[in-house]
Amino acid sequence: MKLMRVGPLGQEKPAILDKDGKVRDLSAHVADIGGAAISPEGLAKIAALDLASLPEIAADRIGACVAGTGKFICIGLNYSDHAAETGAAVPPEPVIFMKATSAICGPNDDVLIPRTSEKTDWEVELGVVIGKTAKYVSEADAMDYVAGYCVSHDVSERAFQTERAGQWTKGKSCDTFGPIGPWLVTKDEIADPQNLKMWLSVNGKMMQDGSSKTMVYGVAHLVSYLSQFMSLHPGDVISTGTPPGVGLGMKPPQFLNAGDVVELGIEGLGTQKQTFKADV
Amino acid sequence: MKLMRVGPLGQEKPAILDKDGKVRDLSAHVADIGGAAISPEGLAKIAALDLASLPEIAADRIGACVAGTGKFICIGLNYSDHAAETGAAVPPEPVIFMKATSAICGPNDDVLIPRTSEKTDWEVELGVVIGKTAKYVSEADAMDYVAGYCVSHDVSERAFQTERAGQWTKGKSCDTFGPIGPWLVTKDEIADPQNLKMWLSVNGKMMQDGSSKTMVYGVAHLVSYLSQFMSLHPGDVISTGTPPGVGLGMKPPQFLNAGDVVELGIEGLGTQKQTFKADV
Repeated sequence: MKLMRVGPLGQEKPAILDKDGKVRDLSAHVADIGGAAISPEGLAKIAALDLASLPEIAADRIGACVAGTGKFICIGLNYSDHAAETGAAVPPEPVIFMKATSAICGPNDDVLIPRTSEKTDWEVELGVVIGKTAKYVSEADAMDYVAGYCVSHDVSERAFQTERAGQWTKGKSCDTFGPIGPWLVTKDEIADPQNLKMWLSVNGKMMQDGSSKTMVYGVAHLVSYLSQFMSLHPGDVISTGTPPGVGLGMKPPQFLNAGDVVELGIEGLGTQKQTFKADV
Repeated sequence: MKLMRVGPLGQEKPAILDKDGKVRDLSAHVADIGGAAISPEGLAKIAALDLASLPEIAADRIGACVAGTGKFICIGLNYSDHAAETGAAVPPEPVIFMKATSAICGPNDDVLIPRTSEKTDWEVELGVVIGKTAKYVSEADAMDYVAGYCVSHDVSERAFQTERAGQWTKGKSCDTFGPIGPWLVTKDEIADPQNLKMWLSVNGKMMQDGSSKTMVYGVAHLVSYLSQFMSLHPGDVISTGTPPGVGLGMKPPQFLNAGDVVELGIEGLGTQKQTFKADV
């Protein structure tokens, strides 16, 4: 299933994309795409609906594909070739950091370049959405706790991240730095999360053209690993790292300016398109 | 005002401590201690209530003093003498990192030592609770966005934090690693947040005996600074760093074991008491 949220910011309604590409209103059946609605039981209930009987709904704006995200956890340097381009070694175990949940926005919303930013950069990532509380779960059981996947754009300000006194979260948490969606694609639709083409272009020029195949620590490992440190809850999102081709890795480095248009996508998970604007 | 939340975990009711030390039920007037209830207008509405007319309520368990925290932001190395004891320099600007909001718990709840932990440590901190959305605010205006203060225990696992592949969040986010409360004390009750005695004992032995006077970057500066990087929202909590006396800084270092009892407090903000237990 392709679950989504449509409507003005803060007033999104839960919806589902049917097989003919029509957006159907789920609000008579679930409060939102998040919490209990994306638990195994909640998803089974949605799967049992007759979609043709649900009203079509306008999708002028698509919101973030999941609501009520308590944690937006990112994995750093999780593609060997991306680690290389940034001059870092592949870490011996996953590097984790947080993006502020207040950074979350819709997949096609404008992204705001912070006032003092000079190094706003892009990162296409596979997002994993948790559907069931996970604590100390094994890698073998980890996928039971995953509701599905989404495209995640881990927008990053490199000077804030690494030149402004320690800890990456400072360069990852700016408002609108977390477009997720368009859809939460349930895991049954993705045969192998470790073999998905993923790409990102800036003003039409392909910059990242990779595959989740080169991810160092895979989805099941990450869910299990994270659950050793903290409980994961329904609606939590794990952004699993980016393949090579970010602006920081170019020679010379290239960053985003107001007016730039970034498009990105992952096989089976849809696409995003953002215009970058100055945060005045 | 001393606002609080009382009742079983997940079923806390909003309450207020009156001047006679009685806990009064606020649930007929506010949905919870958080969001609009802690905005300037919301707090004015509570301040206008006749507390004697509110029913007394049992406070067998005190919950986290604020609900709906979207961001739990911590400031690292923000006391010059604490920086020295950890062998780090005072940073040229605030170091920020995130604690998972899922770590938040009540001030007297048991704290769980993670299964593989060997270096669970303590940190008494002044918590600042945001009452109004703050974005690009000046230091002069910053206090307008603060609802009040609380005691915050930034429980930390030092091996997870620094020996397990980069970024501190890993050692800061474990379940129950974020006791906050007992009260959200509104800012009108605290004449000077930069002159509060703060202390922490382990099994009755005083370990931290400091003052917010030695904080490097003060509350107004931090609110202004953070708001340059991300919007702060009502209910967000900033834990402003710890004075000297943490276990990591002792010679030899000393860490917490199951059965240890930690008590901590800040002048005017109340006290916390936690028993540390193995997370089995």
